[in-house]
Amino acid sequence: MLVRMHLARIVIVDADEEKMSMIVLQEHNGQRAFPILIGIHEAYAIDRRIRGASPPRPMTHDLIDRLLGELDCELEQIVISELRDSTFFAKLVLRRDGRLIEIDARPSDAIAVGAGTETPIYVDDSVLKEVC
Amino acid sequence: MLVRMHLARIVIVDADEEKMSMIVLQEHNGQRAFPILIGIHEAYAIDRRIRGASPPRPMTHDLIDRLLGELDCELEQIVISELRDSTFFAKLVLRRDGRLIEIDARPSDAIAVGAGTETPIYVDDSVLKEVC
Repeated sequence: MLVRMHLARIVIVDADEEKMSMIVLQEHNGQRAFPILIGIHEAYAIDRRIRGASPPRPMTHDLIDRLLGELDCELEQIVISELRDSTFFAKLVLRRDGRLIEIDARPSDAIAVGAGTETPIYVDDSVLKEVC
Repeated sequence: MLVRMHLARIVIVDADEEKMSMIVLQEHNGQRAFPILIGIHEAYAIDRRIRGASPPRPMTHDLIDRLLGELDCELEQIVISELRDSTFFAKLVLRRDGRLIEIDARPSDAIAVGAGTETPIYVDDSVLKEVC
């Protein structure tokens, strides 16, 4: 079963002596929440896309967004599907011509592509049980 | 007119006191060459994809590559189309159902998506004249 979540927080520590970044996903209609450590590059991408900042040239996740648009695809949902050896796995669920297409991705990339849009984020129940 | 180039070199300096990365494009059947400064994240992505290293989860440019495949698109060519205010602009030229689709991208992203494949790289003649 999939549980609806939302992106509750982005934490970016970007100092010379320490670099760390994570996102926190929280249950949409509940209290459960958990962090995912992500790359600082992806953290900045999520933050920038949430703020709706538009650089003169498309950054990498803007490029993915445009690709989907040009190829008549809608990002229908983001699913954090699995936790294996302390690593989260995710999927982009796309809709094209009424058909659903699933593409494996890292959670950070999936959430960066969806950031700034209304795309819902889901986490598989089995993952939530492990981390909460 | 478009001039066929190839990726001649990637330079990555990733030390605490200095971080810098660039690619050098060289004319395929000629001597002209020029550098493009790119982000270190993209430089690592290009290097990794050229080496054919496959991490357990798709990295961002692997994700783009998979997206194109799943959406029945071929990356036909990469074009460095313009130089404006010292900034290079590029396009991914895709083929789907016999139709060509152009998507704006940064040169680093475009070349990272094409890296490790036979996708030809072209530079507009006007850009070459400015930089060589």
